[in-house]
Amino acid sequence: MASPFRYSRRVQFAETDLAGIVHFSWMFRYMEEAEHAAWRAAGLSIAERGGALGWPRVAASFEFRNPLHFEDEIEVIVRLAEVGSRSLQYEHTIVRGDVVIGSGRITTVCVQKTSDGPMRAIEIPAGILRKLRDVLQPSG
Amino acid sequence: MASPFRYSRRVQFAETDLAGIVHFSWMFRYMEEAEHAAWRAAGLSIAERGGALGWPRVAASFEFRNPLHFEDEIEVIVRLAEVGSRSLQYEHTIVRGDVVIGSGRITTVCVQKTSDGPMRAIEIPAGILRKLRDVLQPSG
Amino acid sequence: MASPFRYSRRVQFAETDLAGIVHFSWMFRYMEEAEHAAWRAAGLSIAERGGALGWPRVAASFEFRNPLHFEDEIEVIVRLAEVGSRSLQYEHTIVRGDVVIGSGRITTVCVQKTSDGPMRAIEIPAGILRKLRDVLQPSG
Amino acid sequence: MASPFRYSRRVQFAETDLAGIVHFSWMFRYMEEAEHAAWRAAGLSIAERGGALGWPRVAASFEFRNPLHFEDEIEVIVRLAEVGSRSLQYEHTIVRGDVVIGSGRITTVCVQKTSDGPMRAIEIPAGILRKLRDVLQPSG
Repeated sequence: MASPFRYSRRVQFAETDLAGIVHFSWMFRYMEEAEHAAWRAAGLSIAERGGALGWPRVAASFEFRNPLHFEDEIEVIVRLAEVGSRSLQYEHTIVRGDVVIGSGRITTVCVQKTSDGPMRAIEIPAGILRKLRDVLQPSG
Repeated sequence: MASPFRYSRRVQFAETDLAGIVHFSWMFRYMEEAEHAAWRAAGLSIAERGGALGWPRVAASFEFRNPLHFEDEIEVIVRLAEVGSRSLQYEHTIVRGDVVIGSGRITTVCVQKTSDGPMRAIEIPAGILRKLRDVLQPSG
Repeated sequence: MASPFRYSRRVQFAETDLAGIVHFSWMFRYMEEAEHAAWRAAGLSIAERGGALGWPRVAASFEFRNPLHFEDEIEVIVRLAEVGSRSLQYEHTIVRGDVVIGSGRITTVCVQKTSDGPMRAIEIPAGILRKLRDVLQPSG
Repeated sequence: MASPFRYSRRVQFAETDLAGIVHFSWMFRYMEEAEHAAWRAAGLSIAERGGALGWPRVAASFEFRNPLHFEDEIEVIVRLAEVGSRSLQYEHTIVRGDVVIGSGRITTVCVQKTSDGPMRAIEIPAGILRKLRDVLQPSG
């Protein structure tokens, strides 16, 4: 699959703030929604009920270039920017048609859930990585 | 304790929408925050880590009388309106000084958590009810 | 148009809480998203940029019957329950396939925006009402 | 004033997700709440009603070191990291007692609001900068 993954979304009223534009914190939720849609496109769920793995975030960033307004239709373009043995970094670009709204990165670590104790990072299962790569090929 | 429980809160930027006022869905979160603060004042937590009980909501309503703006300082006044064997109904009034912003009700049921199966309603433990009543005496 | 308006939506990760289900406050946002989608289906926007009208909420309620989980696909079914000269009441049912998640009502008032002063309720413009009725015929 | 600005906050239920910890997007809201509290401590409001200035975000990042749970009491420590003629960069550290939850940066630009047109960056008024510096002295 040669092209990056694209997730479509419309801006909702509750996502705007008194400045009349989307509150900046929503870009992080849009990026995460797109990531989870990519997992579904790969035949996976990032949070299977009763599953043993978790994917906490260790870094997140966004650079804002243009504001978003109520009812704007956006696309979040997701690429797999870096693959470590225990972590993944996604690169996201949010666009509204030809206008770039901004771009960001989210780094997530694969952990084994324990009953209420600290989470422990583990190697990403090969089967998960292979399926994700089919949908989100490395950007470099 | 003769007076109702009061919870203080300042309106935050991300709680406003493009109309320049607090988005209506936040009133439900303000009410819940006040409820949980009342539990803490009673020496309890509504969601103890590893605890066996849950308190899902079965009904929630609010009537809006005046808008709220960024940085407004509000108080949520909480009373225990009805006590059933397995459920509680809270009555909340949100005020900004002398101005009534609105009032609402939340009904919650005591359930036993099961591992990923359906939740089962159970009788509210007497110790919890006694402590809550010390802080939130019935309104009638 | 004989059937009610239906809005489809998938539950997102950030909408869940530590109980593993969708936080109750999101039902109010799902209802509003469906309302605004109905306006778009009617060729309208509830918040046109530079527009003179606003639609603040005066009452909102929901009764919860079944919990929602991450990645559930839901539909919000919207009907126009009551039409006043200055207000509308919507009736919403949220379903996941054949399972009723719950139902609620939102009442909204048509107001004229003024520059930072109090909002003033006005009669709903006939053209707006006609278009909405084409999409959301009264339920009774 | 020699010490950095500190903002206290308790984690609320609606801020958690199904993983049982605070959803990562909330760190950005905690940072913003602390920034706005610093403005108030400086005798300012970042969004005065009817005011002509706006402060859109141009960059935001956070690195996560430890998870947060329901009812945790946190502090957000804010410093002014960089001051440009038209922009400010804040540096935030979120702590729970001695435990560092993570740290981040938010860069914001001073703009002149125009009626529905594009925002125009302008020089930060000297009076605002002086007051902010009294509360948030540069970290370097």
